[in-house]
Amino acid sequence: MAKRIITISREFGSGGRFIGEEVAKQFGIAYYSENIIDQIAQQSGLSPEYIEENAELSPKRGFFAYAFSGRDITGKSVDDMLYEAQRKVILEIAEKEPCVLIGRNADFILKDREDVLNVFIYGDMPEKIKRICKLYDVTEDGAVKLIKDTDKRRRTNYNFYTEQKWGMAKNYTLSLNSSQLGYARCKKMIMDCVDICI
Amino acid sequence: MAKRIITISREFGSGGRFIGEEVAKQFGIAYYSENIIDQIAQQSGLSPEYIEENAELSPKRGFFAYAFSGRDITGKSVDDMLYEAQRKVILEIAEKEPCVLIGRNADFILKDREDVLNVFIYGDMPEKIKRICKLYDVTEDGAVKLIKDTDKRRRTNYNFYTEQKWGMAKNYTLSLNSSQLGYARCKKMIMDCVDICI
Repeated sequence: MAKRIITISREFGSGGRFIGEEVAKQFGIAYYSENIIDQIAQQSGLSPEYIEENAELSPKRGFFAYAFSGRDITGKSVDDMLYEAQRKVILEIAEKEPCVLIGRNADFILKDREDVLNVFIYGDMPEKIKRICKLYDVTEDGAVKLIKDTDKRRRTNYNFYTEQKWGMAKNYTLSLNSSQLGYARCKKMIMDCVDICI
Repeated sequence: MAKRIITISREFGSGGRFIGEEVAKQFGIAYYSENIIDQIAQQSGLSPEYIEENAELSPKRGFFAYAFSGRDITGKSVDDMLYEAQRKVILEIAEKEPCVLIGRNADFILKDREDVLNVFIYGDMPEKIKRICKLYDVTEDGAVKLIKDTDKRRRTNYNFYTEQKWGMAKNYTLSLNSSQLGYARCKKMIMDCVDICI
């Protein structure tokens, strides 16, 4: 089936964003990660800083606290409105052009399209720690905390808005362990899946 | 990392067994699926018929009923003994020769080895129904029931014995949707991951 959009969901520190960027470069197609924030700001009226901190990441306090707090009389929270703005932007982008989309539950948001390849990239803890220590200049303990916190917030956000379980293979067309397969092989495998399409 | 053993976990009807058999043929290595049953029978003293019906499949009654019933004073059930026999056979096979192993929680049983590529194959319901209708000569409703029942029993068995969640991407090195990628592409992708090894 012809694919023109690639979504990359990823564990923090797995190199998923980097792999997605490489795939976009190689195909010569658009790449959306943090550069989507200004469009969401325009759509929602919220500040780019607020979006960066909250659009993909739910508060650390966990699923139930998140699900039941901060809602107005209509049952909508600021984060719900932000999510709706993000959803609209992702739907518009997918309509407009072939692209790679990093994170932001794009796999679920675009589930009614047939031209989307959904990829999940994850890794083993020692390799993820090494990567985060280097990228963020933190200690090993700091890296572990950052990895656990970020993935917990991503998981909470995904599970709340999609009613699917983050990291279940079935959500994605393919899932790759980048620590075991290597970044170059992951990139090649993703590209091999869409050679028929863009 | 050099790999010499490939485990294939799979949803019923996803073609995982077929893909695994093709990979084994192409590499010219041993292939273990139902043909492992005689070895488990020898190890456990149980009949091949009992093993076929119970070794990979827990009863339909669900996780908790399964976990807490049919146990003797030591807390062990017949199924626990069967599982232990199966585990020993799988460990011996992995020690002996390069191979493809289908199902039987082999990914978890061999988790301490570094030369194992763990694959999960799953699919979309319409394609799985078509395959099961054809293979088992059943109606569509019959195929749906067979798929749901078999995967429920596999899931219960896996979750009970591995303390992991069946179908979570993290359990495997790669996970592939065979309905979207096609069997031939799945076979090629698996082989591309072990070109350095057997």
